[in-house]
Amino acid sequence: MSDFSGIKALTFDVFGTTVDWCGGIARESRAMLGPRGHSLDWVAFANRWRRDFLPAMDEVRSGRRGYVTMDQLHREMLDPVVAEFGVDLSDAEKDQFALSWRRLDPWPDVVPAMTRLKKHFILAALSNGNTALVVNMAKRSGLPWDVVLGADFVRTYKPMPVLYDSAPLLLDLKPSEIMMVACHMWDLDAAAKQGLRTAYVRRKDEYGVGAPIQTPAKGAYDLQLESFEELADALEH
Amino acid sequence: MSDFSGIKALTFDVFGTTVDWCGGIARESRAMLGPRGHSLDWVAFANRWRRDFLPAMDEVRSGRRGYVTMDQLHREMLDPVVAEFGVDLSDAEKDQFALSWRRLDPWPDVVPAMTRLKKHFILAALSNGNTALVVNMAKRSGLPWDVVLGADFVRTYKPMPVLYDSAPLLLDLKPSEIMMVACHMWDLDAAAKQGLRTAYVRRKDEYGVGAPIQTPAKGAYDLQLESFEELADALEH
Repeated sequence: MSDFSGIKALTFDVFGTTVDWCGGIARESRAMLGPRGHSLDWVAFANRWRRDFLPAMDEVRSGRRGYVTMDQLHREMLDPVVAEFGVDLSDAEKDQFALSWRRLDPWPDVVPAMTRLKKHFILAALSNGNTALVVNMAKRSGLPWDVVLGADFVRTYKPMPVLYDSAPLLLDLKPSEIMMVACHMWDLDAAAKQGLRTAYVRRKDEYGVGAPIQTPAKGAYDLQLESFEELADALEH
Repeated sequence: MSDFSGIKALTFDVFGTTVDWCGGIARESRAMLGPRGHSLDWVAFANRWRRDFLPAMDEVRSGRRGYVTMDQLHREMLDPVVAEFGVDLSDAEKDQFALSWRRLDPWPDVVPAMTRLKKHFILAALSNGNTALVVNMAKRSGLPWDVVLGADFVRTYKPMPVLYDSAPLLLDLKPSEIMMVACHMWDLDAAAKQGLRTAYVRRKDEYGVGAPIQTPAKGAYDLQLESFEELADALEH
C-alpha cells in the first residue's frame, strides 16, 4: 500500500482524461453540419479530426516547426478532414468550428470528484492545450482548476520533460508531492521519469463507445482506477 | 459613458488591490513574534518589510539581477527588518515566516464581488507574485481565479510591458477586451499603454488605517471606484 499523505497537488491531463473530446466533437460537428444537410458518422468525423494530432505536435516537439497553439493545430487539421468528408465551409466558418474543442464536456464523474479533491489538493491542468483553450472550456463546464499550466507557457508539448518539470517549479513543490492523473500511458510514463507520482484513470470510451484503448500492466502506476471518484476515494484522508 | 460590453476578461493586481497585505502581515507577525515576547508596532513592521520591495524588483526589471520570485524577495527582505527591530530568528524560522505573504486575506468586498463577476468574465490574477504564492493564497481564502498569470511565467516584474502583453496573448483576446483592475496608478498606466482598459479601485487602508495613499486625477482611468462591489455594479450587464 503506497503512502499518498505527502501529495499536495494533482496535475491533470485534460483531453481524454478530464473531458470527452470524442463525444463533444461528434456533438458539435452534428450541430454545425447537420443543419447544412450533412449526415455523417460523427464519431468517425471526430476521430479523423484528432487522428493527426500526435504527429502535428511532434513537429513542434522536434523543433522542425516553431511553437503553435493547440487551437491553431485544431484549425489546421480541420482542412483535410472537411475535404475528405465532402463538407464545404468558408474560412471564417472553419475558424469558428475549430473552437468546438473549447466546448467539450467533462466525463460525468469529473466535477463532483474534483470538487471533493479541491478541498485537499491544488488542482492543476497540465495540458497540451493552450491557456485560452483550457480556461474557456473550464468556464463553460465548471471545471474547478486552481491553476492552469498551459503548454503555451513553455511553448512545446508533452511528453517533453519541461512540461512536467514546470509543475514543481511553478507550484514550489517537490516532484514527489505532485501526482499526474491521465488516461494515456505515454503521459504517465513521462511524468514518472520527472519524479511525479502517477494515477492512471481508464477512459474506456475515449475514442467512442466500444472503440479499443490501450491499458497498462498491473502495477505500472501508483494508482490504476476507473474514475475520478475512485481517485478521490483513494486520496481523501 | 464608456461602453464596456466588449470586455471579456478582468486582470487583477493582487497585493494591495485584492488582498490586504499590511493588515495580513501585521497579524502574521504578531502571531509569530508575540509569543516570543516581542511587542512591536506591527503595522510599522509590515510597512518596513514591504518598503524595499519596489527597488528589489527593479534590480530584476533592469536586468542587473536574474529573475528571482517574489517569495524569494520576501525572504531576502526579512533579514534587515528583523535586525532593525531586534528580533532573533533562525534561518528556518525566517524561511517559514516569509511565507506569511501566502496567507493574506482579501478585502471584505472582494470574494462576493468576484463571485458575481465570475459569471460574466474570465478572472485572471496578473500579479508580480509567483504562481505558488498566488495559488496558495487563493486556496486559503477562496479567491475564485479562473487563471493565474504569475510573474514567474515571464520572469520579470510589472510594469514591464511583457506582463500586460501576456494577458491578451495567453487568453487569445484583444487588449481592449481586457480590463486591468488595480489600486496603483503605475500599474494602470502601464496596462493602458499596452491597450488594456483600466479600473482604479481605491484602497484607502493599503498601508494601514489613515496612512496616506496617492489618488488619481478625475478621468484618468476608464473606471474609478471605491470597491470591487462597485466594479461588479459597473460591469454587470
